[in-house]
Amino acid sequence: MISVDEARARILAAMVPVGAETVALGVAAGRVLAAPVLARLTQPPADVSAMDGYALRAADGVAGARLRVIGAAPAGHPFDGAVGPGEAVRLFTGSFLPEGADTVLLQEDAAADGDAVVVNEACAAGRHIRPRGQDFVEGEVLIPAGRRLSPRDIGLAAAGNHPWLSVYRRPKVAILATGDEISLPGEAIGPGGIVSSNAHALAAFVAQAGGEAVLLPIAADSLAAMAAGADAAKGADLLVTTGGASVGDHDLVQAGLEARGLTLDFWKIAMRPGKPLMFGALGGMPVLGLPGNPVSAFVCALLFLGPAIARLSGLPGDPPAVTQAVLGAAFKPNDQREDYVRADLADGVVTPFAKQDSGMLKTLARATALIRRPAFDPARAAGDAVAVIRLD
Amino acid sequence: MISVDEARARILAAMVPVGAETVALGVAAGRVLAAPVLARLTQPPADVSAMDGYALRAADGVAGARLRVIGAAPAGHPFDGAVGPGEAVRLFTGSFLPEGADTVLLQEDAAADGDAVVVNEACAAGRHIRPRGQDFVEGEVLIPAGRRLSPRDIGLAAAGNHPWLSVYRRPKVAILATGDEISLPGEAIGPGGIVSSNAHALAAFVAQAGGEAVLLPIAADSLAAMAAGADAAKGADLLVTTGGASVGDHDLVQAGLEARGLTLDFWKIAMRPGKPLMFGALGGMPVLGLPGNPVSAFVCALLFLGPAIARLSGLPGDPPAVTQAVLGAAFKPNDQREDYVRADLADGVVTPFAKQDSGMLKTLARATALIRRPAFDPARAAGDAVAVIRLD
Repeated sequence: MISVDEARARILAAMVPVGAETVALGVAAGRVLAAPVLARLTQPPADVSAMDGYALRAADGVAGARLRVIGAAPAGHPFDGAVGPGEAVRLFTGSFLPEGADTVLLQEDAAADGDAVVVNEACAAGRHIRPRGQDFVEGEVLIPAGRRLSPRDIGLAAAGNHPWLSVYRRPKVAILATGDEISLPGEAIGPGGIVSSNAHALAAFVAQAGGEAVLLPIAADSLAAMAAGADAAKGADLLVTTGGASVGDHDLVQAGLEARGLTLDFWKIAMRPGKPLMFGALGGMPVLGLPGNPVSAFVCALLFLGPAIARLSGLPGDPPAVTQAVLGAAFKPNDQREDYVRADLADGVVTPFAKQDSGMLKTLARATALIRRPAFDPARAAGDAVAVIRLD
Repeated sequence: MISVDEARARILAAMVPVGAETVALGVAAGRVLAAPVLARLTQPPADVSAMDGYALRAADGVAGARLRVIGAAPAGHPFDGAVGPGEAVRLFTGSFLPEGADTVLLQEDAAADGDAVVVNEACAAGRHIRPRGQDFVEGEVLIPAGRRLSPRDIGLAAAGNHPWLSVYRRPKVAILATGDEISLPGEAIGPGGIVSSNAHALAAFVAQAGGEAVLLPIAADSLAAMAAGADAAKGADLLVTTGGASVGDHDLVQAGLEARGLTLDFWKIAMRPGKPLMFGALGGMPVLGLPGNPVSAFVCALLFLGPAIARLSGLPGDPPAVTQAVLGAAFKPNDQREDYVRADLADGVVTPFAKQDSGMLKTLARATALIRRPAFDPARAAGDAVAVIRLD
């Protein structure tokens, strides 16, 4: 059995970022940038007013001065002439500062009087002016490659005049649920049967992580069905199986995929839930075999599949963020397996659920955190600090 | 001027959750559940084995006992007969426990020997058995209405045998960018012009918040164009405008919408950036008028638009989560406006950016937190605890 960290390192090492594609700005949020976005223009393109008011010469900006208003420059309509001594031009936020002016008199510090304006507050040179290029200048890197684009980044790319962006395409993740006992939701359930849940949770997980999920037909417990599943996954960037990765006689995933050329890296890790995690490759396609128990499948997805999809997407593939919380109940000593305990986190106190069976999906869905316990962690008392992964 | 909290309360009070729609399970993640999901079956449907091993009578589970293996029950293929004294049935994780058996001997504690199995470790009654209904029972509420569906919830709904779910439809949010000076990215830029960025950032923000963004054509600075924008927004659950909500002569949004029947609730709040926030209604459609400065528009979106979309989606509409961090640089006393300061948060220390101009989109995109300063907050020293909203 290898450790969680080693397993993740081996999985990540096998992930090669997918290629880039061009997408419209309007659908690029959440995608990972494949090429830096450079500013195609300078912003602001000229010295502009930061406020509504009047452009004038600072020398004229003395309290009581009466200036002749020679024009107006609404945003998008620059004033053509120049501001001379004793003159002012009406401005608005974003208006280009006319030639000759070097300060802005705030509207609330001015009194309009016919064709003139009276200065009520002195104004110093440079006030309320956003200098040309204050935000960015043409050619500079606005957004570096490898960043997942936030709505703010989308705004910045727009301001930099980019209608298209180059992003990593969404990694295609094929999901193969296996087992004679499972049916699709709403379909007939055989004797001894249950409804397939892992594949659907995993598909949602893949989409949330930025991948494109391809739900393959359920594979029955036969070598031929597993091999057919492998064939159906061709073209995917990653194949994820669920179920059948344990040690029973009827765990056929490994055998079925080996018939198609699977090379195995590891198939057992020192963690709970989720010991039977399998990793290997089929041709050039990495294969991650998740356990069949729903809780095990999800915890393994969180620890391994999420980082794998991130790495495929052009990101580093960091493990889930771990924070500290105060333990709400005592723990017995842990054994040799790193443990991920379903728990409720409220006001900084994390309380493990009494029952931790890895078949209990309802408990998993209601958990707001996983407590991470290292291998051989000693007994812990309520009030101790523990490491948690937030799920909310 | 009203406070941020009062503005949000008034905005939320005007938001009526949208109706429900039926969606396939496979596209329901991230949506808000409109009706509770009840279990349509009991899980597990029978007492099942939690491990690979053998079903037997606990009375026979003594070290050294040799039991006759009378059959096997792979998952999905229950054993038809009953387990009698001195007998065992081969089982796997998820196998139904055969009649007569009341414990499971682990595979690793057993030695197969032809048609027999030898017990190497004593096993007590009830061991390694998941009792019928351990996860959930038919009819119980698996997921309450009003919850945003996580991948785990999708798995749970699948396990409860739901191929379809009833969710609130995505609120339709029409976005109207205004101003003679703005052009769409990649299109011709007029004299004194800049590229539209707010509408694109807002559209991404709306989608991320679970809404459906409708980007209306840019409205020029004329009453007629604003009124046409109002007409184009018909059928939306919320109209968001950007730009033109200030006090200048050329801020025509309010006037243009009033020509179409806008009733105004408020248009000024005591915050920085973002003072000129307008809120009202046009027929039955709420209208949120965001400032034109990109930083102001985003901060107002975060504080008001996000909660509004949440409320429309069937959620409470909580304000953005606020956490504590240690201030990395001193602050002067604050004035009467609640302040949201762009900052970098690293290792619990939050350092405000030196320049806070609300026209600086690049700074905004790079911020990892906003520091929230109350009105009249006194001077603060580096090392003080401050309230932050995380942006990463």
